Amino acid sequence: MTFEPHPYSDSPGWVARVDLPEPGLQDNTADADRLVQSLTKTFDLETIDADLTLFRKLPLLLRENHYRVRCLVCRDKSRGVLIHVGPDDTNIVLAGLAIDLGTTRVVMRLVDLDSGRALAESAFDNPQIVIGPDILARIHHTDQPGGLAQLNALIIDGINRHMAELCQSCGLRPDQIHLIAVAGNTAMTHLFAGLPVHWMIREPYIPAVNRFGLIPAADLGMSAAALAQVLIFPNVGSYFGGDLIAGILYAGLHTRSETAILVDVGTNAEVVLGNKDWLMACAGAAGPALEGGMSRMGTTAAPGVVDRVRIDPASGKFDLHTIDDRPPVGICGSGVIDLAAQLFLAGMIDIRGKFHPPECKSRLNINNGMAQLTIVSGDQSGSGRDLCISQADMDSLVRSKAAMYTILETITGTMGMALSDLETFYVAGTFGSLIDPKSAITIGMIPDLPLERYHSLGNSSLGGATLALKSRNLPKEMESVRDRITYLELNVNQDFMNRFSAAKFIPHTDKARFPSVKA
Amino acid sequence: MTFEPHPYSDSPGWVARVDLPEPGLQDNTADADRLVQSLTKTFDLETIDADLTLFRKLPLLLRENHYRVRCLVCRDKSRGVLIHVGPDDTNIVLAGLAIDLGTTRVVMRLVDLDSGRALAESAFDNPQIVIGPDILARIHHTDQPGGLAQLNALIIDGINRHMAELCQSCGLRPDQIHLIAVAGNTAMTHLFAGLPVHWMIREPYIPAVNRFGLIPAADLGMSAAALAQVLIFPNVGSYFGGDLIAGILYAGLHTRSETAILVDVGTNAEVVLGNKDWLMACAGAAGPALEGGMSRMGTTAAPGVVDRVRIDPASGKFDLHTIDDRPPVGICGSGVIDLAAQLFLAGMIDIRGKFHPPECKSRLNINNGMAQLTIVSGDQSGSGRDLCISQADMDSLVRSKAAMYTILETITGTMGMALSDLETFYVAGTFGSLIDPKSAITIGMIPDLPLERYHSLGNSSLGGATLALKSRNLPKEMESVRDRITYLELNVNQDFMNRFSAAKFIPHTDKARFPSVKA
Repeated sequence: MTFEPHPYSDSPGWVARVDLPEPGLQDNTADADRLVQSLTKTFDLETIDADLTLFRKLPLLLRENHYRVRCLVCRDKSRGVLIHVGPDDTNIVLAGLAIDLGTTRVVMRLVDLDSGRALAESAFDNPQIVIGPDILARIHHTDQPGGLAQLNALIIDGINRHMAELCQSCGLRPDQIHLIAVAGNTAMTHLFAGLPVHWMIREPYIPAVNRFGLIPAADLGMSAAALAQVLIFPNVGSYFGGDLIAGILYAGLHTRSETAILVDVGTNAEVVLGNKDWLMACAGAAGPALEGGMSRMGTTAAPGVVDRVRIDPASGKFDLHTIDDRPPVGICGSGVIDLAAQLFLAGMIDIRGKFHPPECKSRLNINNGMAQLTIVSGDQSGSGRDLCISQADMDSLVRSKAAMYTILETITGTMGMALSDLETFYVAGTFGSLIDPKSAITIGMIPDLPLERYHSLGNSSLGGATLALKSRNLPKEMESVRDRITYLELNVNQDFMNRFSAAKFIPHTDKARFPSVKA
Repeated sequence: MTFEPHPYSDSPGWVARVDLPEPGLQDNTADADRLVQSLTKTFDLETIDADLTLFRKLPLLLRENHYRVRCLVCRDKSRGVLIHVGPDDTNIVLAGLAIDLGTTRVVMRLVDLDSGRALAESAFDNPQIVIGPDILARIHHTDQPGGLAQLNALIIDGINRHMAELCQSCGLRPDQIHLIAVAGNTAMTHLFAGLPVHWMIREPYIPAVNRFGLIPAADLGMSAAALAQVLIFPNVGSYFGGDLIAGILYAGLHTRSETAILVDVGTNAEVVLGNKDWLMACAGAAGPALEGGMSRMGTTAAPGVVDRVRIDPASGKFDLHTIDDRPPVGICGSGVIDLAAQLFLAGMIDIRGKFHPPECKSRLNINNGMAQLTIVSGDQSGSGRDLCISQADMDSLVRSKAAMYTILETITGTMGMALSDLETFYVAGTFGSLIDPKSAITIGMIPDLPLERYHSLGNSSLGGATLALKSRNLPKEMESVRDRITYLELNVNQDFMNRFSAAKFIPHTDKARFPSVKA
């Protein structure tokens, strides 16, 4: 199902043209005050601050332009900031940058703030990966002397470098970027802002900052316009970050009467259930590691990576699809889910996810005492080596999918809903968008709903950040959404463990829950 | 009469101690948000911003101090800023600096922001004097290339230098200055902030900024604490500056039921009439130059300058008092007023202010076709030259005093009051504080009120700036006072000129207005 972006994208943006009444003896308000008065009305703000350098050039600028100027304003929870004033010349591009600050990948989109048009996009691996692939390793690294500064420099330098390239690709200079919106998980935004993360992973799990407000880009070391401002999406807590807030806003979950669920299956499993009246959230970090299970098999979609698997149950023949149709070199997370579903339907794994030797035939062998299934033999792979999945990988996937299902069951149950009540199921995140819902249902990772209820949002974190560049309502909305979220602490109690154990079967102990799955 | 400072000085200041509840699993608000929440309540603000560097050190600081810290907050019209957080240790002085930014003199007072105690004071000539002694010369200088930057650097460097000395004099470092309050006229605050002044003196006389709000000291080039903030008193217009707002606040004019008048006789004549319900202001720059008349004879009180004059009407003998009892080298503004009053009472000038040869005797002579009166002969002066006052000087003084009286008459008349209705007459400014009201009445500069109605405020501009360092109510109050002031444009129309002409006699054409003056 195609996702319709939230109507925010139609609301007025941050660029405003003002045509001030010329001063006279009867109206001798100062230049700055005259402009600020007009802008506070336009942007419905009590006051608007500006850097002194703007006011220094204002008197001449106003007179040269006959009191008609183009302004760029942004706001956070309560405060408006005038970022730019200049002649009303649309040939001068006022650019904004939306950043999805992922643990693994960073995706950036350059936007013309005046027209709202996307100008260019780029993505790169988070340079902090050299310190550690996962959040935890990076947080522990900050306990080393200079560790936090090192992680901070890695991400800031990386963004600056790619920002410059992105600008160059469309004939702009980085100093034309005046507004930057950043959505990321709590740890990533903290490292981006150079904030300590030590206590985030220690009981009672306290982040340094929840609401960042506007921060001058220069204070963050970003090479954008001198007065550029950075809007970091607020987080609810250490385990529920601004990327999810961005996702909720992008999906418009908080504006609809009907209850919908939003699931972000990125390097972590985060879930939001709600409507215009309430929002309930929980994060999968409290359950067994879905992250570990997925990342070991690689979540990055690259040329030659298997992303779709079909197995003919009669012949046992594998039909693999790889990205760019290149010889297979690996398998991405969505491919693994596809593979598991197909293995199950072909009888090659049982309801516990264990390989079934009679069906696996010669594909199954033992390596270092561990059963493993050859997906592609070395003579057909791109690397010359066999592409295999071990029983441990499969067990990990089963735990992960069970955790996801248990989380979904728990959060809906908390609100007195059944999984079948979910009319709209949003799947967010790049990884999530690659998952075939049919396969995810087959292995019992997500509930057996009619497929048309599943909607892939794509990169909703980037989508939300882009909205923040376009809509003057967004900062208030993001604060209000943040404040309205009830965070459900997933206590791994007996009840949770019982549900988890029942979900550790394919598709589930209770087969009646998955009528569409016929093995 | 001794002036009772406004009770603001008793209101709570900018330093607050917070004792935060420790976080727990049930209360996992982020560190920054926890602190900000508490401070917004304390300071009755919607939100409080802080520089990222404060939040970076906050998590460790809070834990090391068991969540009990001392904070320094300031606010402007609407926005609160957290300037400092540290251990609750009163041995660490958090200093503030009040600055009276005069055209001629700059006076600074160092204050302990926690106790409110004044630590030290210093004064120095405004270094911009090298460009020009008066405001107009300096404003014209900004039309030269680099002229504004030069004037800005002169005052900033001067303040930085004297700030360092002032700190050293009481064992502090300039980086212990966290808050700076600046009161000055509109031109001086503009030059201090590097703002263009070109249009201030050109119809319709528009300043660049009326409401400055808080400005980071670093943005102004001030060598104070890295996160120090500067609060510049707002101005009403080009001819009514923040120094007057500071004076109103210091006098508490805006809080009393009874109507009072505040007159600042500095290098300009500014008048405010009002009470808690209304405030009406006007400035003497619209009338004939009181400034010129005064400054030509020197307004700076220095050793050897004549500040009091008595003339024995019988013998015609002059009894002069000089500052520090040194041989006379000049005469300051207050001395000139004294001199004119005494000359009038001794019959040596007539009601037009013209020298009366029979009474002046040998003191009167002609120099370059201009009558001049010797006050001190060269053999008794400190310079070896005669100290004289010319007829032109005297004519200028008469015009100046007439302008002042006319302004007072006009502003009270506008409100339907008679000058005799003024129960409280505040004289502000250093120069004003030196004037003997009796002499000023004698020449008809100020109305013939009982002397106990006159109150000298001293340096009310510095007094107001000091209050801003001490009282958390003040920024709101200064904005509200600014907004409430009705500025009376002194149209030099026929009516004004008629009143001015009548006032160009000593004490006045209508002698009945000055019953206490007996020539």
